[in-house]
Amino acid sequence: MITTNRQHEKFMRMAIRLADQNVLAGKGGPFGAVIVKDGKVVAKSANTVTTTTDPTAHAEVTAIRLACKKLKTYNLSGCVIYTSCEPCPMCLGAIYWAHLDKIYWACTRKDAAENGFSDQFIYDEIARPLTKRTLPVQQLLHQEAQRSFKLWQESDLKIDY
Amino acid sequence: MITTNRQHEKFMRMAIRLADQNVLAGKGGPFGAVIVKDGKVVAKSANTVTTTTDPTAHAEVTAIRLACKKLKTYNLSGCVIYTSCEPCPMCLGAIYWAHLDKIYWACTRKDAAENGFSDQFIYDEIARPLTKRTLPVQQLLHQEAQRSFKLWQESDLKIDY
Repeated sequence: MITTNRQHEKFMRMAIRLADQNVLAGKGGPFGAVIVKDGKVVAKSANTVTTTTDPTAHAEVTAIRLACKKLKTYNLSGCVIYTSCEPCPMCLGAIYWAHLDKIYWACTRKDAAENGFSDQFIYDEIARPLTKRTLPVQQLLHQEAQRSFKLWQESDLKIDY
Repeated sequence: MITTNRQHEKFMRMAIRLADQNVLAGKGGPFGAVIVKDGKVVAKSANTVTTTTDPTAHAEVTAIRLACKKLKTYNLSGCVIYTSCEPCPMCLGAIYWAHLDKIYWACTRKDAAENGFSDQFIYDEIARPLTKRTLPVQQLLHQEAQRSFKLWQESDLKIDY
């Protein structure tokens, strides 16, 4: 399946339009995402953080969830994602876990930062050593928790993802 | 509200037990998370990626969603999270977007990697320059997409998150 530049731009325009319409309707942040397989749209979403009171409801995460529901799988190999802005670390992580083949984006984390969004800040935080982050972390019961992994290794029921 | 070490350990044991029970029941990966506010459990979840066919259904992300639904907000300031393993970049991003006050964890990303999970790999990928990642990225229509942010800046309906 060969997708031409014109087709790529068509899907990206769809993502940008989702972002625009979302803002005009007051439904959430200026972000849209479209997931495509074999040249066909599988799922699309805008950002719905404030209207669904779900901080994880970024356009990419929501589109991934919808695509997985539609295709009845947690593995989106063979699909690509078009997003109106470079994914934040949460969305980028979700894209890796979903095994998408490629990311197309339009705006960058710098554009997002200049418009008041935390994407760049979170990228900076992740890059810092644990003790230098603004969000405090503390480790507890490290040894005790190894049990969960031991049970996993011994399990006949485990399914890798 | 002062939480003693014993209380912290109690909540962490709850997270670890969720992980253990999840594995024993064959319901997903060996991970559990508990969100607490003012010394009381607000929400808890194990990893349900494979049983819900949702690659974003890690314990932390699902617990955040449940807590937000329960408290009817996308902002969990005043809450802390106990997770049986250091959050992956997706979950760490979600924790920042949810504005949780502190993270307590037991196992580390190294433990997760040793047990076959991609957390460390994704941390490594995020740290690489875009062109050095295994997942290809491509930018399209950068100028055209600025419109979404312009609409956002001009909008009277926008709600920050």
